[in-house]
Amino acid sequence: MSDHSQATRLLRRKLGSRVALSDEARFRASFDGSKLSFLPDAVIRPRSRDDIAAVLGLANRRRVPVTVRGAGTSLTGSGSPLRGGWVLDLSGWRRIRVDAEAGMARVQAGVVVDDLHRAADAVGWFYPPDPASKKYCTIGGNIACNAGGMHGGRYGVTRDFVLALEGFLPTGEFVRWGTPTRKYAAGFNLRDLWIGSEGMLGVVTEATVRLIPRPAARWTLLTSFTDEAAALRAARQLFAARVQPAICEFLDRFSVACAERVSGRPVFPGAAGCPVILLELAGSDGEVADARREVLAWAKTAASGWREAADRSEAEALWAVRRTCSGAMFELGDSKLNEDIVVPLASYERFARFLERLRRRSRLPIPTFGHLADGNLHVNIMYHAADRSEYLRAEKTVVELMRGVVALGGAISGEHGIGLAKSPFLAIQHGPAEIRAMQAVKRALDPNGILNPGKMFTPFKVWEHPRLRIRLPWDHK
Amino acid sequence: MSDHSQATRLLRRKLGSRVALSDEARFRASFDGSKLSFLPDAVIRPRSRDDIAAVLGLANRRRVPVTVRGAGTSLTGSGSPLRGGWVLDLSGWRRIRVDAEAGMARVQAGVVVDDLHRAADAVGWFYPPDPASKKYCTIGGNIACNAGGMHGGRYGVTRDFVLALEGFLPTGEFVRWGTPTRKYAAGFNLRDLWIGSEGMLGVVTEATVRLIPRPAARWTLLTSFTDEAAALRAARQLFAARVQPAICEFLDRFSVACAERVSGRPVFPGAAGCPVILLELAGSDGEVADARREVLAWAKTAASGWREAADRSEAEALWAVRRTCSGAMFELGDSKLNEDIVVPLASYERFARFLERLRRRSRLPIPTFGHLADGNLHVNIMYHAADRSEYLRAEKTVVELMRGVVALGGAISGEHGIGLAKSPFLAIQHGPAEIRAMQAVKRALDPNGILNPGKMFTPFKVWEHPRLRIRLPWDHK
Repeated sequence: MSDHSQATRLLRRKLGSRVALSDEARFRASFDGSKLSFLPDAVIRPRSRDDIAAVLGLANRRRVPVTVRGAGTSLTGSGSPLRGGWVLDLSGWRRIRVDAEAGMARVQAGVVVDDLHRAADAVGWFYPPDPASKKYCTIGGNIACNAGGMHGGRYGVTRDFVLALEGFLPTGEFVRWGTPTRKYAAGFNLRDLWIGSEGMLGVVTEATVRLIPRPAARWTLLTSFTDEAAALRAARQLFAARVQPAICEFLDRFSVACAERVSGRPVFPGAAGCPVILLELAGSDGEVADARREVLAWAKTAASGWREAADRSEAEALWAVRRTCSGAMFELGDSKLNEDIVVPLASYERFARFLERLRRRSRLPIPTFGHLADGNLHVNIMYHAADRSEYLRAEKTVVELMRGVVALGGAISGEHGIGLAKSPFLAIQHGPAEIRAMQAVKRALDPNGILNPGKMFTPFKVWEHPRLRIRLPWDHK
Repeated sequence: MSDHSQATRLLRRKLGSRVALSDEARFRASFDGSKLSFLPDAVIRPRSRDDIAAVLGLANRRRVPVTVRGAGTSLTGSGSPLRGGWVLDLSGWRRIRVDAEAGMARVQAGVVVDDLHRAADAVGWFYPPDPASKKYCTIGGNIACNAGGMHGGRYGVTRDFVLALEGFLPTGEFVRWGTPTRKYAAGFNLRDLWIGSEGMLGVVTEATVRLIPRPAARWTLLTSFTDEAAALRAARQLFAARVQPAICEFLDRFSVACAERVSGRPVFPGAAGCPVILLELAGSDGEVADARREVLAWAKTAASGWREAADRSEAEALWAVRRTCSGAMFELGDSKLNEDIVVPLASYERFARFLERLRRRSRLPIPTFGHLADGNLHVNIMYHAADRSEYLRAEKTVVELMRGVVALGGAISGEHGIGLAKSPFLAIQHGPAEIRAMQAVKRALDPNGILNPGKMFTPFKVWEHPRLRIRLPWDHK
């Protein structure tokens, strides 16, 4: 760390108290949701664009690593300052300006996603991306990781809503990509290159996002199935009928069992322990009425049971069950490898069989749930870290999982990104030419390698590293 | 050209008759829809991926310019082999495989967009991007230019539908970006960097695109307004009411006059010469019924006249009018600077006033029409090329137009791209740091600068260059 002490002193002289050097400030910025901790030299809370230009300009000249940070909810370690240096904390950049006529919002990087949801809702609009940590995570982090959520299948992910970005190149130069318009075809698309680049290619300070009209109607249905294969086959039938639910959440029997242990009652009355699909339709009154007819016809032939929510509070009760399953998994092990893989629709049943084989071979609990309309399933490999045998089987299983997913035509991450946690698997997803091309782009935009160094391309086995034993506000209960 | 004659002989020896050297073949590949002609050394029609790898590998070693070509419908010259070398013609790569269950299609680069429309429609799905040249243009070209069309406002443009790409780096290495899934967060997003890069960063051979359910219902309404300001104000009111028409086309009074000269009757009965907005709603029966009520309520207060199409053939008659206006403009001048600018919704009326000033100052006809739901307006500066005074005023006017559009927060191109035609204006849209970043990315991926050299970054004043006097199949009548 002391390599950067002179640069840090210079910066402190320039920016004064915006540069925090206390042990407490540095510790709090040393980790993200992955709970992997790496102490930075300083934490900067910039007040203006000039502050950011000064930080990056100096960091670039002195080759000081800079890790940009919002709320630090990343699950992959993409927000941890792996190589020390400076943390640029944008969580104070919280201005929201909704254009209720155009259906757009200008948001600063530190805006909490749920605050954007509320601001849009207040004037009749809707911002669909909704990561599980939406009450804490920031739009800047969502852009960095191309965050998704439950609405991805129908509406898309963060990338599908970003119209324009402004921010800084690693050299400290201010840039804008895109305009607040739906169409734009003027030069190479560095906007979308920045989105999902995990803070390694530029610093986003503000975004213009597209909104959609707030759905006038919503309708919720819980369906139950005898086994996972039946549930996944049914989902394929629903999509083949061209029904596009706003949300379509799947809980396998292990996730259902977790939820039932917490709540003390069956997720689907009379079918305890059975996998479920929880569906929500959204749109105009007429649109929801049309789709409801189709979904009910489907449920009668494809599901072993179904229950409509009579009103919003009953719908909320159904959704509450979905939210409990993840936290309850820690009864199955004190450690979790939480992998947000993606599989194409056509591979759903093959994936279910593959997962059964993984469970048998590993003798580990692997509860799985997720977003069926976009193939993004959360596979949770549970183990006890102190049990050497379980630990080794978990390590082996996660690698097999990733190989299997890619062999099925899928992806190693749908919404969490690579960071540290998925870095050992990048070479499963991408061949050498693809990775070299990515690295060439990195060198082109960040020649001194100062932005979030060590992430994505250098394999880092998270399971070999100690994690902080702390509870974070967004940890599942 | 002779610099590359040895490399061309080598390639011919390797690929045989797939390498065409005849004057006719070379002439036909020498221009695109811009009618700017530059003779290549050879035209290659590859049969396999290996052919393409061989072409690019050799071109990269021998520094031979390579311009990739589909149907050659580009209006900007992005498909013209400016620096000679080789044209890689992918128009024979036409395989379409629709996955009617997942709502996706795998399409080779040479697939004609309308063929994709038909293949999707046949199984109940819909591919929204629809450039005016859709009967001729290829999906590869649409990806290269991030093509749009009339459905952009509600559904988005090509970029919004591409899930995965495969193709080649300029070095001849095969790569894949993305998977056939809605979510994907595994590494830098070179998929979207390729989209809209106008054949300068890679060669797309195949894409997986997302489809949406074919709308069960469509409803068409023609509305008439006293003047442009009233029409644009009304459009803003419609969008502020959160109505999202599938199509929302505007014709100013000059475009209406052109259409009326062709058809011999008023576009809107009883309101000859008045600007119109042509709207189409699409969706489920209930959704269209809900929106129809809102649109009719809007028309009654905002429009001076409105006419519902009673059925599809009446709707088609209304759309036919929209399609005639562009070709009829050549009665106003033998030359057209056709600029597909974009302005934010909030600037619509200021843009209309700005355009009136341009007309007065230039004393040139500037009929304007376009896609109101996404701000993408086609501004047509008409002049007689042989009239020195008109020519100079047209040149001055197009530069003023671009400056004005960017000052209003808009973009110099919404769907045509930069190519040669917009290259003098790139520095109006983007500052030096932004352009340097784009060029750094270009050098990183194409170190020898072989792919489509001379485009985008080197200002090229199309109006100073002769154009071929030929009619192309997709020229407006």
